[in-house]
Amino acid sequence: MEESFALPPKSNFSEWYHQIIQKAEIMDIRYPVKGLYIWFPFGFKLRQLVYSKIRELLDQTGHQEVYFPALIPETEFKKEKEHIKGFEDEVFWITHGGVSELDVKLILRPTSETAIYPIFKLWIRSHANLPLKVYQIVNTFRYETKHTRPLIRLREITSFKEAHTAHKDYKSAEKQVKNAINIYKKFYESLAIPYLITRRPEWDKFPGAAYTIAFDTVMPDGRSLQIGTVHHLADNFSKTFGITYEDVGGERKFVHQTCYGISERCIAALISVHGDNLGLVLPFDFAPVQIVIIPILYKGEEEKVLSFARKIYEKLKQKYRVVLDDSEERPGAKYYKWELKGAALRIEIGPKEAREGKVIVSFRDEREKIEINLEDLNFNKIDQWASEMRERLYEKAIEKFKQCIKYFENVNEISSWLKKGIALIHLCNSEKCGRALEENTSGSLLGWLEEVPSWINCKVEGKCIICKNNSKIAVLARTY
Amino acid sequence: MEESFALPPKSNFSEWYHQIIQKAEIMDIRYPVKGLYIWFPFGFKLRQLVYSKIRELLDQTGHQEVYFPALIPETEFKKEKEHIKGFEDEVFWITHGGVSELDVKLILRPTSETAIYPIFKLWIRSHANLPLKVYQIVNTFRYETKHTRPLIRLREITSFKEAHTAHKDYKSAEKQVKNAINIYKKFYESLAIPYLITRRPEWDKFPGAAYTIAFDTVMPDGRSLQIGTVHHLADNFSKTFGITYEDVGGERKFVHQTCYGISERCIAALISVHGDNLGLVLPFDFAPVQIVIIPILYKGEEEKVLSFARKIYEKLKQKYRVVLDDSEERPGAKYYKWELKGAALRIEIGPKEAREGKVIVSFRDEREKIEINLEDLNFNKIDQWASEMRERLYEKAIEKFKQCIKYFENVNEISSWLKKGIALIHLCNSEKCGRALEENTSGSLLGWLEEVPSWINCKVEGKCIICKNNSKIAVLARTY
Repeated sequence: MEESFALPPKSNFSEWYHQIIQKAEIMDIRYPVKGLYIWFPFGFKLRQLVYSKIRELLDQTGHQEVYFPALIPETEFKKEKEHIKGFEDEVFWITHGGVSELDVKLILRPTSETAIYPIFKLWIRSHANLPLKVYQIVNTFRYETKHTRPLIRLREITSFKEAHTAHKDYKSAEKQVKNAINIYKKFYESLAIPYLITRRPEWDKFPGAAYTIAFDTVMPDGRSLQIGTVHHLADNFSKTFGITYEDVGGERKFVHQTCYGISERCIAALISVHGDNLGLVLPFDFAPVQIVIIPILYKGEEEKVLSFARKIYEKLKQKYRVVLDDSEERPGAKYYKWELKGAALRIEIGPKEAREGKVIVSFRDEREKIEINLEDLNFNKIDQWASEMRERLYEKAIEKFKQCIKYFENVNEISSWLKKGIALIHLCNSEKCGRALEENTSGSLLGWLEEVPSWINCKVEGKCIICKNNSKIAVLARTY
Repeated sequence: MEESFALPPKSNFSEWYHQIIQKAEIMDIRYPVKGLYIWFPFGFKLRQLVYSKIRELLDQTGHQEVYFPALIPETEFKKEKEHIKGFEDEVFWITHGGVSELDVKLILRPTSETAIYPIFKLWIRSHANLPLKVYQIVNTFRYETKHTRPLIRLREITSFKEAHTAHKDYKSAEKQVKNAINIYKKFYESLAIPYLITRRPEWDKFPGAAYTIAFDTVMPDGRSLQIGTVHHLADNFSKTFGITYEDVGGERKFVHQTCYGISERCIAALISVHGDNLGLVLPFDFAPVQIVIIPILYKGEEEKVLSFARKIYEKLKQKYRVVLDDSEERPGAKYYKWELKGAALRIEIGPKEAREGKVIVSFRDEREKIEINLEDLNFNKIDQWASEMRERLYEKAIEKFKQCIKYFENVNEISSWLKKGIALIHLCNSEKCGRALEENTSGSLLGWLEEVPSWINCKVEGKCIICKNNSKIAVLARTY
């Protein structure tokens, strides 16, 4: 294999991840500040494709895209007491403009509740303004002191999708929580990424929320990665920021709110769940290069092969993102390069194929070569392959996911398992039992399954593993 | 007119601009920090349409989109001496993360040369990597102490398009300067915005540049607005950041660079140049709502009119951004609302039209009503109207533009004219004469015409208005 394309085996996940990010040209990790990275053109394209899907799903469901400032005055930020407690250790402070000290210090948004809700107060007057559903895709900032990692733990999350909604009462907001969960399910299904949906413990919910629902997936090293959260805010923020409306009877009431976010961790999951020892494996719809055409050139027959390849290229590029790699590299080097970059479909053409009007096709996930006639290489066929490939990736990912999830009745068996995967247990909802379990296993309690997948082989109701009271299924993991 | 839709006359431009931004729902100007504003969903859509055009033009010409961090370490920022002098008074400083003081202070990017060029040093090895052409559309930050205005003078420019290129020598970079100028011309022609292209004075160029070319338009109050700049950086930055390549002969050389930017001022110009007393007037391609259908309902015939309107809506929305306004407002209120929001084409349908299979069409700029048969309302026809509308807007804008530009041979006549428009003069390129002219007129010297429009009624060569040496045409204005 070409030295520059070689990755460590995926079984050494931490190093594999570190290297694929740089070598597949997702991000350049050489920026001279901890926790800040650069999107390469190739990675930027991937990001754009993934976020276009989120946009599409939100637009379809009546969300409107907006943009609120990145700078939040200290005075607004400090209004909601729980919220500030949750974030004050990790915000960046802007204290000076030019050579002057600012009168009111500014924070760089870590999330935008305190930027948006003072304006919701102005936008919402009556029940006719409800529900209000907006979102923005913005850079947010956290002063991370722990070990940082591209796309996973950063100081600038360059594309945080945050949605904020307001409703007439608690129940309507709860309905929106369910809608948001459905949107996130669709999103992750399109990426072929398996997830568990849990309700976070009371003592570990979003600061200021009534409750928090989270999506987690499992990374190849068995650790869980939170890839989306949905918060019911009840009237906690509306009381702080004075967001009221006049109901049909003319009475002033506080709105109930929700917010839900997805960060670039969705891309970290996409890379990690499907990738292999050779590089990226991406569902066809999200591959920056969907199809690569590689002409195999022999002396004397170059032009014939190339003109056949160009004809195919011209046809396919009407609908797909196609590259005709007619560079001077050897075919082997081209294979490695495009496998690393996750080109979903490879088309090889040699003199024999050019003569016979055939092409050799292979898929990034299966890597078996199939010879087909040119006339069978049509848009319908490719669309069908694309959909089959996503299904294959999803099935394979779910299979691995299941193997990483195991039910336990004995606390002592959990610790060693957590090095490989996630543990399910029955656990009551007391903080005492939750903390006890965490202390005895060095795992983190993600919460209780909000939806129980059909393939989980334990009963929904059971006895708490600590106190033996009746309880639901909880999830314990080493987390990112 | 509905009170809430009423604008001051455009002749009172400052107040008109202030109000149209808020009332047409471009930006909410009520954010509690000076110089920061919120994009409403409607404004956000307009922004997206305008920036899609820039993206299209850059992608077509081989630029690749990237993203570099928003935070720049003080150490990199301070490397280029001229550059830091130009920006140090207006950068925001991040001094603390959480409760800790940062070891190395960070600035919020005011522009990204010092974030990008240390990485260009890593990306560029040999002549095969050149030319390198990247761009990003990002939020940038300036600590503005002067009077701030939405889209014009802000503390957060939410969508600054900045392109950065590297080339093998001065001449190749100069060619890229010309390419960039051509891209910007196409962009502003698509927006139907007239411009002058000048070479900025030596003492007023971009900090660190060899020279600066700028695009300026004229606002309705006669002041000039800079709407784009293109900088030849020569090897000034490459020497500071050590950006070298190996040429074909194996010799190490410094690259020559260019950078060019467009900010949200392009949207300020779009609104200001075309708008009228009733609100936004936008070229069809950029109108967030291209077509509005307004049913005129009379008792007993509601359903007939509505079903006819819905049929038209279903057809048109296959290709255009259409709204069927079937709200309960009176037709007059709907007219005002959609005129304010710059819907390019209005289709009215009453019982008579529904019966006869006709529609009443009017354009936002002309406001004359035309009756046409439904079968003539096809995509070809609408596309033709769209293109004619852009041409009308451009012609009208150029006509006004010409009236705002006047040539002077006598310094004493200039000051009073500058209250209405821009002055052309012959001026040598000495700083002494430039400063003298500025002092005697209270105008700002934009620079010398880089391209002389055919309609300008003075000779290209002439005698300097101050020292009488041979000189070219310069431009003087009150600037935003």
